[in-house]
Amino acid sequence: MKVVYTPAHLLHNPEVEIERSSAHSPFEHSGRAEKIRETLASDSTFDIVAPTAWGIDPITKVHNPGLVRFLSTAWADYQRDIKQSREVVPDIFFKSNLRERMGTGQEPASVNGKLGWWCFETTTPLTDGTYEAARGAVDVALTATQIVLDGAKSSYGLCRPPGHHATTDLYGGYCFFNNAAIAAHHVASTTGSKVTVLDVDYHHGNGTQQIFYERDDVQFVSLHGDPTRAYPYFTGYAEETGSSKGLGSTLNLPLAARTQDDAYLQSLERAVESIKKFAPSLLIVSLGLDTFITDPICDLSLTTDGYDRCGALVGALGLPTVVLQEGGYDVNALGVNVQSWLHGLARTS
Amino acid sequence: MKVVYTPAHLLHNPEVEIERSSAHSPFEHSGRAEKIRETLASDSTFDIVAPTAWGIDPITKVHNPGLVRFLSTAWADYQRDIKQSREVVPDIFFKSNLRERMGTGQEPASVNGKLGWWCFETTTPLTDGTYEAARGAVDVALTATQIVLDGAKSSYGLCRPPGHHATTDLYGGYCFFNNAAIAAHHVASTTGSKVTVLDVDYHHGNGTQQIFYERDDVQFVSLHGDPTRAYPYFTGYAEETGSSKGLGSTLNLPLAARTQDDAYLQSLERAVESIKKFAPSLLIVSLGLDTFITDPICDLSLTTDGYDRCGALVGALGLPTVVLQEGGYDVNALGVNVQSWLHGLARTS
Repeated sequence: MKVVYTPAHLLHNPEVEIERSSAHSPFEHSGRAEKIRETLASDSTFDIVAPTAWGIDPITKVHNPGLVRFLSTAWADYQRDIKQSREVVPDIFFKSNLRERMGTGQEPASVNGKLGWWCFETTTPLTDGTYEAARGAVDVALTATQIVLDGAKSSYGLCRPPGHHATTDLYGGYCFFNNAAIAAHHVASTTGSKVTVLDVDYHHGNGTQQIFYERDDVQFVSLHGDPTRAYPYFTGYAEETGSSKGLGSTLNLPLAARTQDDAYLQSLERAVESIKKFAPSLLIVSLGLDTFITDPICDLSLTTDGYDRCGALVGALGLPTVVLQEGGYDVNALGVNVQSWLHGLARTS
Repeated sequence: MKVVYTPAHLLHNPEVEIERSSAHSPFEHSGRAEKIRETLASDSTFDIVAPTAWGIDPITKVHNPGLVRFLSTAWADYQRDIKQSREVVPDIFFKSNLRERMGTGQEPASVNGKLGWWCFETTTPLTDGTYEAARGAVDVALTATQIVLDGAKSSYGLCRPPGHHATTDLYGGYCFFNNAAIAAHHVASTTGSKVTVLDVDYHHGNGTQQIFYERDDVQFVSLHGDPTRAYPYFTGYAEETGSSKGLGSTLNLPLAARTQDDAYLQSLERAVESIKKFAPSLLIVSLGLDTFITDPICDLSLTTDGYDRCGALVGALGLPTVVLQEGGYDVNALGVNVQSWLHGLARTS
């Protein structure tokens, strides 16, 4: 199986994350992707290749061009206008009811205001090379997708930073550009055929859901910690099923704390049944390993063996499958967990 | 002049503020109010009195009862559900375009989600006694207002925490309940006569503006750092003049960096003219001293003597006047600056 990787991710290198009322070492750091790369590099099943450059157009087909423009200069603007700071994090957030009855407003002039205009949370610092890293992750996703469009049964894109929390207009949740959504839109719009994004990250893929919420050509299916207790809290409820033409093309399967392999696989079976019914020509998997039993920030209880079973269940769909990396924060286990999931996939597909 | 003060403010005692991409000692701390109290206590012009208790009703007439309920239990809920933490700060913020086309949503179940539902920024930690302190500041404002309604020419409410950034539905900007707006609504609704809130804090009083934006019985006039560069960035532009019945009852006078006394007083003269035209029966001043030349987080250049001239210009309106404390972060100068402003007021009113 081809693994697409670029060292560009190293350019996004936060040292501090502001989360749960304090500043601490980031859970999302470059060591994550390097651990996965090392593990897969030592396994002859995998062949690591570099991405090709795809340019900005596939990004602005999914994201507001204003968001892309902002991210391309935000770190430098902050150094010039606000202060010298290794990491740049918003401290005030635009909300429509801040300006109730005053109209929706415009992107503000100040970079501090812009940060709160384009971002929805505090855990996603911008560093000097963040924009280049985020562009690299999109290239990884699109290159992995092209490998499958060109005839491979499956591929794996080692995306970092991850993508699934980024909406049309907003970055956050460690995500800048929505790699999976950009890839799915690319497939749907260039082939004219249907695509499913299956999101198995612990956290609801609110960005991917929002981007495709009204569309009937891209299905979004997600298993995740119930948002009554889990980030991102505001989305991922079972009653969110799509709207307009997209009604019925969104499926959310929220999970209880400490869900183990067997119960998880039962939910994954439901996801697989709904994918069969949608009958896409290609499957994109947003793969998070933060469902692991020792993940430091999540509360499910999957095992390395469970990931093999998950991959096998998805592989049995028999669909061309692009797997893109999202979260997973137990770094010691992250490489073997990705490896296990991909082995399962390869065995049955 | 009666000064209304309560030590309840000491119960709101943050040690950390998350702002400008870092965590540091808070600019808004209990030493501010204590400095003002000490300075006024040593001046025979002033007579310090305790507030009476006004209950919750005047608050829920201005704020969403859901916000009040949330603030009454949020700190304890966080200790129980999330973690033991001296300060509680949101890290994810609800924005309507997070859930585009999915409806406006409901207050989420988790306290982390609720924090981002009811708050718009990171600089306003909840501590154990924050709710009691915020309730105390409202009692201070209403007691100071009653002193003027009972016949005094003027009074001063030493409110802490401040209030003018709190909107109907949101806390933030060091503010929980909007003391000035609660007092203004109390006067307008109980006397049936018109009220003006004149806001001279460095930062735009976005909360007070939003609360009265559609009303013609409460005028809002504000001098502040231009939001193209200054917090809160999203509001305070000259083109915001009210809407519906309130059209023309909002006046924003944004100021350039390093504005000095003479230029400031020219803008204050414009504010005074618009107040004369509105012809209120009572004036509430949201008094911030963060326009001071050495304020650590702002960029205007007023002097202690300038504050005396400002107070005198406002006093010459001849209106019953309630002065309520908002910001001001050069603590060494804060007491004498409040004293100077109030001396100017008392001399001409």
